[in-house]
Amino acid sequence: MGPGPSTVPQRVLRALASPTLGHLDPRYIEIMDDTCDKLREVFQTSNQLTFPVSATGVGGMECVVSNLMEPGDEAIVCVNGIFGKRMVEVMERNGVDVHVLDVEWGRVFTEDQIAEMVQRYPKAKALTIVHGDVSSGAHQPLEGIARLLNEEGMLLVVDAMSTLCGHPLMVDEWHIDAIFSASQECLSCPPGLSPVSFSEAALEVMERRKSKVRSWYFDISLLKDYYMGNGARHHHHTAPVNMIYALNESLSIVLEEGLEARFDRHEKLHRRLKAGLAELGVGYVPERSLHTLNCVNIPEGVDDEAVRARLLETYGIEIGAGLGPFAGEAWRIGLMGHSASQANVDMLLAALYDCLE
Amino acid sequence: MGPGPSTVPQRVLRALASPTLGHLDPRYIEIMDDTCDKLREVFQTSNQLTFPVSATGVGGMECVVSNLMEPGDEAIVCVNGIFGKRMVEVMERNGVDVHVLDVEWGRVFTEDQIAEMVQRYPKAKALTIVHGDVSSGAHQPLEGIARLLNEEGMLLVVDAMSTLCGHPLMVDEWHIDAIFSASQECLSCPPGLSPVSFSEAALEVMERRKSKVRSWYFDISLLKDYYMGNGARHHHHTAPVNMIYALNESLSIVLEEGLEARFDRHEKLHRRLKAGLAELGVGYVPERSLHTLNCVNIPEGVDDEAVRARLLETYGIEIGAGLGPFAGEAWRIGLMGHSASQANVDMLLAALYDCLE
Repeated sequence: MGPGPSTVPQRVLRALASPTLGHLDPRYIEIMDDTCDKLREVFQTSNQLTFPVSATGVGGMECVVSNLMEPGDEAIVCVNGIFGKRMVEVMERNGVDVHVLDVEWGRVFTEDQIAEMVQRYPKAKALTIVHGDVSSGAHQPLEGIARLLNEEGMLLVVDAMSTLCGHPLMVDEWHIDAIFSASQECLSCPPGLSPVSFSEAALEVMERRKSKVRSWYFDISLLKDYYMGNGARHHHHTAPVNMIYALNESLSIVLEEGLEARFDRHEKLHRRLKAGLAELGVGYVPERSLHTLNCVNIPEGVDDEAVRARLLETYGIEIGAGLGPFAGEAWRIGLMGHSASQANVDMLLAALYDCLE
Repeated sequence: MGPGPSTVPQRVLRALASPTLGHLDPRYIEIMDDTCDKLREVFQTSNQLTFPVSATGVGGMECVVSNLMEPGDEAIVCVNGIFGKRMVEVMERNGVDVHVLDVEWGRVFTEDQIAEMVQRYPKAKALTIVHGDVSSGAHQPLEGIARLLNEEGMLLVVDAMSTLCGHPLMVDEWHIDAIFSASQECLSCPPGLSPVSFSEAALEVMERRKSKVRSWYFDISLLKDYYMGNGARHHHHTAPVNMIYALNESLSIVLEEGLEARFDRHEKLHRRLKAGLAELGVGYVPERSLHTLNCVNIPEGVDDEAVRARLLETYGIEIGAGLGPFAGEAWRIGLMGHSASQANVDMLLAALYDCLE
């Protein structure tokens, strides 16, 4: 019940352990194509270029940035937690001139703040924003942001690490141009893959590049034929075959439950946790909290590390420590995917009651 | 029996499917440390910085290049197949001035050729060479190469994708400064990890960098505390936990067999295959063949694709197609790790006898 990895269901572990096929074997290609189809469903998109990057979540971030941006480009990066900060770092390493819009960790961005920033930096090629930064637990509304962007093609880039399959997220309806997530959070697959999706506009930007992508491993011009199924499936790198089996099974579980039912479950359990914590005198850091990651204030006089150690050793429950300004001040309780169950919420509340006594 | 992934043993698949721990859980850190210890054993090194990169083999290549090299640096790249060519590409994307030493695909480099190149480009920061390029099947001798390099600290960088745990490979004794491999070849682990190791000299070069590594994901200055176990294990990215379980188990299997016994097995089965192929009139492309990857000439008048399809459909055997100048001209038969068995060799020979009739 930390900020990920969440608990992986047996079905997914069994799929993970299926015999390893060759990455060019037609039976494997079928599984890969099916995985991309299911990713389109959960991203709620018809984007043709939708696939799992062969790396953990930050690899997906790096894939998006290094393919969309070129040295000398400008970008607006919204920072309200550690993943916004990391985006600044990744952008700068790609030679991008970054304009930071920052608010206090735990707060979200208003439309006015974003509109003003866009006006100030009209030449920015992209604006990046985190849907749910797990360092602060704030839930950023995304609907309507696209219409604030410069009409000359400014791209909307979204970090959806902690929200994909946990919170409503509509890539097409919200006009998101590039998005990345991680396998180990609300998908409850082991860590190791980063689902991404790119709009037609993003594809065009990549096709107009003047310089080569700095990373060969993440270069979409070399990868896209393999994933988009245009003609031959050429070898680029050896796909992480077994991890793809696991992701496919995780996605099946999500789609069997249904996206709406899954979002409702996360919301209901978040409310149950919040009410229980209130009774223990534990309040939330952000005003507008994620359902999937609950960043809560450690009550006065409580020994942070001792409580987390006791939760782990006595109750077998892992919760996350605070990061950045919240180190020693907050806990981060994940309710993600398979870990978001009533039994887990009630057990954690009972265990915390014991630890805080 | 292609150029990888090789067949993954049940023991490894079972390990892969163990419950996913958090990547900062002390029990997981223990497994990670043990994995790095075992990697030191198979690399035959005492290099402290030895760990599995969270990406497939080319990710390890990119990690090595992006950390050792800076824009404007020079490098000598030995090219005798597709992986040498890829190294040129990865170097150039990192802003490196590349001097290519190339020989015909399938041939290896002599000491004289290397010495001459080093004399011509004394300022090169590194010389890179492929121990066994799976596109051509040539087995490059590495012993003695280090002493040909410029004494002013030219680094020896080795691509050991297809040789680690299949061919003798002594990182310390051969004075290799940086090496990368892949989990899915002679280790018989699923694809998804790239074991790497760096010498003290390589570490010093990284510490003297003037520019940041272009990739945040592969940046060793951010990763090394986690893997070298100096002080706190800070979060960098979420480790691919289950893949590490699998790699650990693969390494246990290698060490139980013993490195010498494992090398002998690969050699013996290579000879058996070679003798059997000779009887079928099938000869080898390279003079000095790898034991682990057998690149052989397709006999005149034989339909390449039809034979490979029949092997896959009727016999359940996958072999690799030729690449580059060998497309349609050669087959690539892997005898890697768990796939290198007498039963496999004899079955393939019987199947080929049938297909070539």
